[in-house]
Amino acid sequence: MARWVVAADFGGTHLRAAVVAEDGTVGYRADRRTPAQASAGEMVGLVLDLLGEVVGASGVRPEAACIATAGLVNANEGKVIFAPNIAGFRDVVLTTPVAQRLGIPAFIENDASAAALGEFRYGAGRGTRHLLHATLGTGIGGGLVIDRRLYRGAQGLAGEIGHMVVDPSGPRCACGSRGCLEALVSGVAFAARARRLLEQGKSAVLKEIVGYEEPTGVHLFEAARRGDRASEAEIRNGGHFLGLGLGSLVNVLNPDAVTLSGGLLAMGEMLLGPMREAMRSMAYGAAGSALVRVGELGEDTGLLGAAAVAFERLELG
Amino acid sequence: MARWVVAADFGGTHLRAAVVAEDGTVGYRADRRTPAQASAGEMVGLVLDLLGEVVGASGVRPEAACIATAGLVNANEGKVIFAPNIAGFRDVVLTTPVAQRLGIPAFIENDASAAALGEFRYGAGRGTRHLLHATLGTGIGGGLVIDRRLYRGAQGLAGEIGHMVVDPSGPRCACGSRGCLEALVSGVAFAARARRLLEQGKSAVLKEIVGYEEPTGVHLFEAARRGDRASEAEIRNGGHFLGLGLGSLVNVLNPDAVTLSGGLLAMGEMLLGPMREAMRSMAYGAAGSALVRVGELGEDTGLLGAAAVAFERLELG
Repeated sequence: MARWVVAADFGGTHLRAAVVAEDGTVGYRADRRTPAQASAGEMVGLVLDLLGEVVGASGVRPEAACIATAGLVNANEGKVIFAPNIAGFRDVVLTTPVAQRLGIPAFIENDASAAALGEFRYGAGRGTRHLLHATLGTGIGGGLVIDRRLYRGAQGLAGEIGHMVVDPSGPRCACGSRGCLEALVSGVAFAARARRLLEQGKSAVLKEIVGYEEPTGVHLFEAARRGDRASEAEIRNGGHFLGLGLGSLVNVLNPDAVTLSGGLLAMGEMLLGPMREAMRSMAYGAAGSALVRVGELGEDTGLLGAAAVAFERLELG
Repeated sequence: MARWVVAADFGGTHLRAAVVAEDGTVGYRADRRTPAQASAGEMVGLVLDLLGEVVGASGVRPEAACIATAGLVNANEGKVIFAPNIAGFRDVVLTTPVAQRLGIPAFIENDASAAALGEFRYGAGRGTRHLLHATLGTGIGGGLVIDRRLYRGAQGLAGEIGHMVVDPSGPRCACGSRGCLEALVSGVAFAARARRLLEQGKSAVLKEIVGYEEPTGVHLFEAARRGDRASEAEIRNGGHFLGLGLGSLVNVLNPDAVTLSGGLLAMGEMLLGPMREAMRSMAYGAAGSALVRVGELGEDTGLLGAAAVAFERLELG
């Protein structure tokens, strides 16, 4: 008989939950918009309702629950320390109320770490032993699978590849440092690059696309697709720095493969071409043989990642 | 009764070997100058003689042998792929002849990886679970202990922290990339910095110290110690980049501690002060709590590292 868990993926726009079988089959699922405003108590209530609905309607009996969420997480204490894009998620213990409500063990995990284990179990990282996963979205995150298990580090914070410094003379990052990977290549970084192009009056095409909106990475990519050289150069430059960051980690970690997920993948070869080129140019010895693969889980990366964490937790006891 | 192994540490200047007990006690030891010229066959002969002498004279019965060596190593095949500073060490299988001669299992390991496990078992990394070790010498190496075991990566190449790019507009590295950690802070990098200062006529003190010799990092440090500001600025700048590189890895790996070994430690706070400052400035969340500790094994880092690898191999079967 199939074993099931209930998995949740919480981000700045959606709260998703589903029951997931051990082979990665997704059963009943539900989806809510992340509320723009909510207290910690209201959010816990919403989480309990969402997971309760999914379990109740699914017709299966999950053995564990796992929530993958954006933000800083203390997996040992089952707590969201701070999720900048989710209202009410500051110093909130989620695992205890979920475990009480559902009567099963409950876990929480950083979404990028969960994504790494998801791609390892169900996606582009299948068959590897050591995997580096990068999530390329509004911000840059990452996760590591070492010896076929999720690697969390000393305080459960491992994987913050967005805060490697790859260009000390680069732009200031929200974290306070200069030239972090996330300040050079991410949704936020591409929006800042678009803003700079507009301020410098360097792209009429971009100006027309943006109009009176706040410039975003999507605008920048659209301008590049319409042939705007300045916009394309920004995306290619971002891809180059992504390659330097991932290439550095490949030299340090010598993983079997590197997998990628997230919205920036829509930029395709314009981003990934320069990334691969930079990785190739700096590959040290056979470490360069690490395969770079686009993730296979798409929208379900977070859900399947949370499910993978739940099953790993059950296996390890 | 104490358990023993025979350990060896091969570098560009010395070939050291000793019997080492499980608690890190070093018994009989021997030391040879690394020959300036030798064929592969001559080197294998020298290795066998050295290890044979140590085992014969030690009065103990080692259960395994392990050679830690500079250069690229394929631990699975027991082979030195290439050691740029050791004559004859190119595509040489060492473990088979050693195992045959001594009648015990024989292993080989990259010296920086061995140093990591050495500090973890016997030195400044004791009591940690996840450890990052950096070797700061002529070149920059590193090793990782993950979950209390040496982490080797997919092809046994993990730990090459010297070939992270930390300043894409920095100096060219011997590996071909630009701005690798090793090109910014290492014996080789400090020698290049000294050469540049002399070419630019920027330091009379350094010029006097170097005289007609080839400039080295030791000259640079001596000039800085005598109050030469330009030389001190170069060392401090190197320390800053070392901090950016290690700080990036701390954010990605969230280790319990970072340990350091190697000749550059002689530069003391002039190097380590700016390093710590850079690490502090970029620490992301609690990952910054990783302790930075100077290694405790000194000259015996390689030997005790090799011994640690041998004991781990015996334990893991």
